[in-house]
Amino acid sequence: MLQQKIGTLHVRASAPGLYEITDDVERWLLSQGIGEGLLMLFCAHTSASMLIQENAARAARQDLEAFFARIAPEDRSLYTHNDEGSDDMPAHIRSALTQTQLSIPVQNGRMMLGTWQGIYVFEHRREPPTRRIALHLIGELA
Amino acid sequence: MLQQKIGTLHVRASAPGLYEITDDVERWLLSQGIGEGLLMLFCAHTSASMLIQENAARAARQDLEAFFARIAPEDRSLYTHNDEGSDDMPAHIRSALTQTQLSIPVQNGRMMLGTWQGIYVFEHRREPPTRRIALHLIGELA
Amino acid sequence: MLQQKIGTLHVRASAPGLYEITDDVERWLLSQGIGEGLLMLFCAHTSASMLIQENAARAARQDLEAFFARIAPEDRSLYTHNDEGSDDMPAHIRSALTQTQLSIPVQNGRMMLGTWQGIYVFEHRREPPTRRIALHLIGELA
Repeated sequence: MLQQKIGTLHVRASAPGLYEITDDVERWLLSQGIGEGLLMLFCAHTSASMLIQENAARAARQDLEAFFARIAPEDRSLYTHNDEGSDDMPAHIRSALTQTQLSIPVQNGRMMLGTWQGIYVFEHRREPPTRRIALHLIGELA
Repeated sequence: MLQQKIGTLHVRASAPGLYEITDDVERWLLSQGIGEGLLMLFCAHTSASMLIQENAARAARQDLEAFFARIAPEDRSLYTHNDEGSDDMPAHIRSALTQTQLSIPVQNGRMMLGTWQGIYVFEHRREPPTRRIALHLIGELA
Repeated sequence: MLQQKIGTLHVRASAPGLYEITDDVERWLLSQGIGEGLLMLFCAHTSASMLIQENAARAARQDLEAFFARIAPEDRSLYTHNDEGSDDMPAHIRSALTQTQLSIPVQNGRMMLGTWQGIYVFEHRREPPTRRIALHLIGELA
């Protein structure tokens, strides 16, 4: 019979950039005992976001971070909303260009991620606060 | 017991830009009587999109709109698909860079949005038609 | 009563670009016998992605592909992660800017897509391998 579970992860990155949470999500998932289902992760912030990305090459993540720094730079002359710091408006833009929420199918108790896929919180602020990621799982017991 | 509900919001922005629908979504949600669940919003268009963004500072939204105008400008020389108006192709690109669909967890009858998060239809056309947003809710009665 | 189904589509594009899979998804959906529900598509790769886009004008898709080629060009000088080919890092960036996953509501046995919406795999590599798209469907029998 289908049932649902709700949980929360608290994530604190040490710096801006991609911060992998695949293991934390997997640990939570395993503790719920669901065999088959649908997992949804929701980032309750507008200056951090979610992304599924390659988790093998560290250089790929750095290039990705550099791309977002280029496309939405910290440049006060570009923005009128500057009173929360010069990294605030780029943070909103980088969030808008990535994801607030991710859904992932679950089979045999595990997320059906591809071989090279990792789940990341994309932290956009220079002095990251603790971020709240809500998890919603619907599925059948294993 | 889990059950599902389907609804529709009709949204007509008065101009291009971010148009907040948080209250409309909340009103629909409350009328369904679901306490805990998963809400999904789907924009049935390719020249308008969805976005969760900061709903406090109006300047932040204007900067965001300006960013998308810069990155995907109305410039006929950039596009071959110009027969539906010079704002049509930028509309498709801006939609592709944002979201067609958003999932949001529900707890105690309310969306688990962060303090500063609002739900927006991002209208990309200069003479906006009425937009259809489908809502799908799965969950348990409160 | 609500039930869930899991399936897989294997997709092999012949070249980089938008590759429509609307009919394949619809065929799978119809074979499941679900009348009302929530369909989720998940791309298990980080160098191909998902997108809902206009499926009428071919020129619109070409302009969209050209936009992503401009914004995340194949230019080795921009990236440090070059050992998997000059199209690898742009592929990760273009994936990050679009979607890994799409949710679509289902009513009367059909996806509630807008008139001009098609579902696409956005292939970013020049020699595309076979891609795996996982499908998760939750709903009630028709």
